[in-house]
Amino acid sequence: MSQSKKWMWVSAVFCTTLAVSLSVPLSALSNNEDAALISKANTLFKPLPVTDALENNEFTPLRVALGKALFYETRVSSDGRLGCATCHNAAYHGADALALSVGIHGKVLPRNAPTVFNTSLLVAQHYGGNRASVEEQAFKSLLSPLAYGNTTNDQVETKLIKLGYTSLFKAAYPSDAKPVSVENWSKAIGAFERTLMTPAPFDRFLKGDANALSKTAKLGLEKFISTGCAGCHNGTVVGGQTYQKFGITQDYWLVTGSTPKDAFKGYDKGRFHDTKNEADAFMFKVPQLRNVAATAPYFHDGSVETLPQAVKVMAQLQLGKQLSDEDVSHIVSFLEALTGDIPSDFAQVPQLPAAPH
Amino acid sequence: MSQSKKWMWVSAVFCTTLAVSLSVPLSALSNNEDAALISKANTLFKPLPVTDALENNEFTPLRVALGKALFYETRVSSDGRLGCATCHNAAYHGADALALSVGIHGKVLPRNAPTVFNTSLLVAQHYGGNRASVEEQAFKSLLSPLAYGNTTNDQVETKLIKLGYTSLFKAAYPSDAKPVSVENWSKAIGAFERTLMTPAPFDRFLKGDANALSKTAKLGLEKFISTGCAGCHNGTVVGGQTYQKFGITQDYWLVTGSTPKDAFKGYDKGRFHDTKNEADAFMFKVPQLRNVAATAPYFHDGSVETLPQAVKVMAQLQLGKQLSDEDVSHIVSFLEALTGDIPSDFAQVPQLPAAPH
Repeated sequence: MSQSKKWMWVSAVFCTTLAVSLSVPLSALSNNEDAALISKANTLFKPLPVTDALENNEFTPLRVALGKALFYETRVSSDGRLGCATCHNAAYHGADALALSVGIHGKVLPRNAPTVFNTSLLVAQHYGGNRASVEEQAFKSLLSPLAYGNTTNDQVETKLIKLGYTSLFKAAYPSDAKPVSVENWSKAIGAFERTLMTPAPFDRFLKGDANALSKTAKLGLEKFISTGCAGCHNGTVVGGQTYQKFGITQDYWLVTGSTPKDAFKGYDKGRFHDTKNEADAFMFKVPQLRNVAATAPYFHDGSVETLPQAVKVMAQLQLGKQLSDEDVSHIVSFLEALTGDIPSDFAQVPQLPAAPH
Repeated sequence: MSQSKKWMWVSAVFCTTLAVSLSVPLSALSNNEDAALISKANTLFKPLPVTDALENNEFTPLRVALGKALFYETRVSSDGRLGCATCHNAAYHGADALALSVGIHGKVLPRNAPTVFNTSLLVAQHYGGNRASVEEQAFKSLLSPLAYGNTTNDQVETKLIKLGYTSLFKAAYPSDAKPVSVENWSKAIGAFERTLMTPAPFDRFLKGDANALSKTAKLGLEKFISTGCAGCHNGTVVGGQTYQKFGITQDYWLVTGSTPKDAFKGYDKGRFHDTKNEADAFMFKVPQLRNVAATAPYFHDGSVETLPQAVKVMAQLQLGKQLSDEDVSHIVSFLEALTGDIPSDFAQVPQLPAAPH
């Protein structure tokens, strides 16, 4: 398939959004202040791409469709009830609305599930960054005792064949000698996830439409920048590119109400648990802020329930600032402009292969 | 809202199906045999209605929409991960594709989940018939320790208010002094479920379209009737109206491979566990057969994996007959013609209220 053809189908999905953004005339800039804010914002932030293509995971409609089926498939997990969509639920903007996620056999996981939207654009996956890509995250979840709970890759492949997936894998990976493989399982899911971009009003603003943000959202954007939030929360997904210590001015649990976790033998020390390097203690990946208003509760352990409270906590813990209620309210207005539409067919549950008979 | 207006929106959804069925000319009957089979089938079976209206649960678009949201809502359950859609999943034709369902905290339930489609047309809910209606089933699941696991109705109502459902309940039940109530929770879900009808090729056949069934499906229908299956599996949903002893010719577990269950202190004795009446021992509600080909595994405990095997087991256990592989294959073809389309927007996951902030 040619490069141009390959993209036609993906582009088509987003044509409405593109048409809107491209058709905004400069005259829509209501005044110089708006123009200056748009200009300033463009030095810190970037609009979302249409999809997040990956050189080593070429994606085609059949692979994305297979990935979507596997994303919703629960029978691959060891209790038959967990799929990617369990923690990344369309009803909750690609997350699960829980403080801590629940894995197989009702096991409570030690961390909060982030939204799956735009997540391939992050520097790595998981709060500790111990998964290099969405493909690796999917791959390793198969044998995780808390997630899918399988014991071997062979077991997974046998399940997929028994469930009737062979023809779908063959169609998606026609030149592979062994199409039904855990490698292709994770590649297909990765391909699907790389289409899950959620362009939001803020993208239209960045592209020049001053009316895409309300007056309070613009005040919030100014405050978000002047307070220092944009120091870490910048770029295409408004964060997600670096690791930072959580709790610079004081221990985070004193403010968030976080509790020690058995999995960490105490308070969660973030990246340290993966690297065992003391320099990484309490270092967490900076979360993206896209869709943050739709994905409560907050922080790595979901310890804070509301967005205004999360904004206050961050200003205090990371920047040593006490924000007024008005400032918080403006910043929240700005953050609400980062909520995008659910990707076109993400919320349409696919019909999965009935077990063969 | 007038009676006629009230039905306009529901009817619209199904207009295509109706148009197809009404436009079939009598000349489509290919020959006298077809005409005779259609005529015979009409003495035993009935086409599905458009919806299953209920006098005591008047439904409006707002109530159905609220019911759909609550059907997909997981945060009302005590571990935050179970909703109606967990066991009645669009990916698996309104069931969960498991032998035994999984409730909160990973607890394995003692019975298999049937599809939610057309279920309001059954004589009662659950294999033992201990829920009179879909509304009662929804209502009682809230305090069930295996299902939603709540301890009081007040707790449920408090959750619903905190989750931001107040305005939706008020809009759906504007004249209620207390709109957010567990009664309205179950009524709204019931209203939604009563729209979940799945007209299938067999309905078109019953309405006169001889070509709606393949030749083997017609042979299967003949065999289904002549073998005696239609003695219990008849009517609108091809079963679901009576209770019958499971295992007439011998104990069912000798053929199905069923195992004793802790919940029943031994083998599942069906209706007996609810009535404590020895006459009800091993009496189970006859399941509907609509969508049976899409809802493996089979029987009250999911002990049989494939449809051909389930057909054989039934003939042997209930009718004392050994069916040939060819007969089984024909009957399976007929049963496949009972698979309907997923109701229009059932598979579109609704966006649920984000927790208020």
